[in-house]
Amino acid sequence: MRIHIQNPENDPLFDFSLAMWDAAAARAPDIGFGHSVSLGTTPADFAAAMQDAEALVTDVSVIKALFPCPAPRLKLIFLTNAGLDGLAPFTWLPPGVALLNNRGTHAVKAGEFAIMSILMLANRVPAMVTNQRAGTWRKLWGSGLGGRRVTIVGLGTLGGATAEHAARFGLRVTGVRAHPAPHPHCTCVIGTDALDSVLPETDFLVLACPLTDATRGLVDRRRLGLLPQGAGVVNIGRGALLDQDALCDRLDDGHLSGAVLDVFTPEPIPPGHRLWSTPNLIISPHTAADDPATYNPLSLDIFLDNLRAWRDGRPLPNRFDTGRGY
Amino acid sequence: MRIHIQNPENDPLFDFSLAMWDAAAARAPDIGFGHSVSLGTTPADFAAAMQDAEALVTDVSVIKALFPCPAPRLKLIFLTNAGLDGLAPFTWLPPGVALLNNRGTHAVKAGEFAIMSILMLANRVPAMVTNQRAGTWRKLWGSGLGGRRVTIVGLGTLGGATAEHAARFGLRVTGVRAHPAPHPHCTCVIGTDALDSVLPETDFLVLACPLTDATRGLVDRRRLGLLPQGAGVVNIGRGALLDQDALCDRLDDGHLSGAVLDVFTPEPIPPGHRLWSTPNLIISPHTAADDPATYNPLSLDIFLDNLRAWRDGRPLPNRFDTGRGY
Repeated sequence: MRIHIQNPENDPLFDFSLAMWDAAAARAPDIGFGHSVSLGTTPADFAAAMQDAEALVTDVSVIKALFPCPAPRLKLIFLTNAGLDGLAPFTWLPPGVALLNNRGTHAVKAGEFAIMSILMLANRVPAMVTNQRAGTWRKLWGSGLGGRRVTIVGLGTLGGATAEHAARFGLRVTGVRAHPAPHPHCTCVIGTDALDSVLPETDFLVLACPLTDATRGLVDRRRLGLLPQGAGVVNIGRGALLDQDALCDRLDDGHLSGAVLDVFTPEPIPPGHRLWSTPNLIISPHTAADDPATYNPLSLDIFLDNLRAWRDGRPLPNRFDTGRGY
Repeated sequence: MRIHIQNPENDPLFDFSLAMWDAAAARAPDIGFGHSVSLGTTPADFAAAMQDAEALVTDVSVIKALFPCPAPRLKLIFLTNAGLDGLAPFTWLPPGVALLNNRGTHAVKAGEFAIMSILMLANRVPAMVTNQRAGTWRKLWGSGLGGRRVTIVGLGTLGGATAEHAARFGLRVTGVRAHPAPHPHCTCVIGTDALDSVLPETDFLVLACPLTDATRGLVDRRRLGLLPQGAGVVNIGRGALLDQDALCDRLDDGHLSGAVLDVFTPEPIPPGHRLWSTPNLIISPHTAADDPATYNPLSLDIFLDNLRAWRDGRPLPNRFDTGRGY
């Protein structure tokens, strides 16, 4: 297959190389060899490659900058991102081209970040850091995780990995997803429409779902008020899942004991924004799910797995449904 | 047996009650019943009870305040602390009285705190919090734990629980102890005298050993310099295990990427101390190992387990060796 890999121009930490491709091919020898692979960075590289490329491997920023464009032979676009909400509406996608995301790449890193965040909430680290900022020594006791209750919204790659860690630490895990179906690491799974019923019994609320029309503003001011006194919040999904201002209010008034957020509206957080000084809040700069050492190799493994399915005429495991938005 | 439980006067969060005793007795019915148990708080309560008490359950602060004292029938002192370095030298201990600590109580909470700290170092949370303090958005990428190298000094309750979590996350675990012997969760175990040889291969150094003459100042300026660029440090043992000033210097100059400390010299940290403003450092106020909800019940379970051994004439599992200091 004629495959083109386009690196974004300003993200050298996550650049692909042909050596990286060769290593991935060697890990999947049944599908990795025999392709014509080109690599580009500039718009000129891109335009030249699109004349005959059948598959494109790139990221959201390149799509935003360079599509729509003529690509007469293109059949597959594989994006090295999981959340593609920034590309909606998908009118830029040439008819008949299958869009793939890299769902799965983030499991290890995001799962570890999420269980770390839950441990930080249980151990009161957000409050400790707030005291530290003020130069104040004050004893603050946390608790173990065993028997405490976590509610995880979204049971895809991120939420599923979170649930697995949480269950291993003895948390009682409730999963929330669009269409409830049992999950091996959840004690119970409910539909998103039943979220209100579990919030009053939630010690830790983890947001790990995609941003779609159905999830935008899901955790609004009213729902934050349904959480019990002392609950904590983690967001590794998208900033707009949550009423960020209401969250700051409930941290200010002490209803919530802490929050660990990796995603915000807007990003970057502007200088002087109230998020910077809200107590008991930890700010991670939208890097929770990304490990530069493994990101591209894992993404290529997933791409090759989809290429195998394509060759064999099977459904593509990472096919992105532009209608539902994930 | 005639048992007296003396609560400290100013620590209501950790008070024992007779209901707590009864619940512990019910969990260990073969040894829990048939005792004469009194409860006290004031020095007068204490003096009265010591006239006939055979066993005393209390904590370090009470010993410091009220010993030596006449206690003609006393055979056992059970302290609800694990590190008894603050009671050395042990000349206050009446001859023939067995001293027990509550080794084991802290396993769950301290183990969770330690793996949280390692995850925070891998995810660069100390640097994120430093950026947050400055109101600065800067992308910072961390890594997963798989394949990274942790060195754990001390393989008792704290270090053993840490090693178990670490192995489960795929870390390569080196244990360091006074007398090296294999440990089920360590890839290798070395003697304290070989510490220098593993420091250059250590991503995360965790101090979880007791403070004794042999461990005071163990991680000095020279040894901190043996850690590789970007390594991180966790201390859940005692502040004096570490040259705290040298640690701050290596955080200031960027040789170390972060530290999570629960113990310090002195405690509380005085206002204006450099620790408060050292970058990439997280300060926990010496509460890592304590979960108020489970602390006293677990301590009583351990006391009753020792009482069973005493009744049966077996060695006491929690006997504290005043000579070696743990």
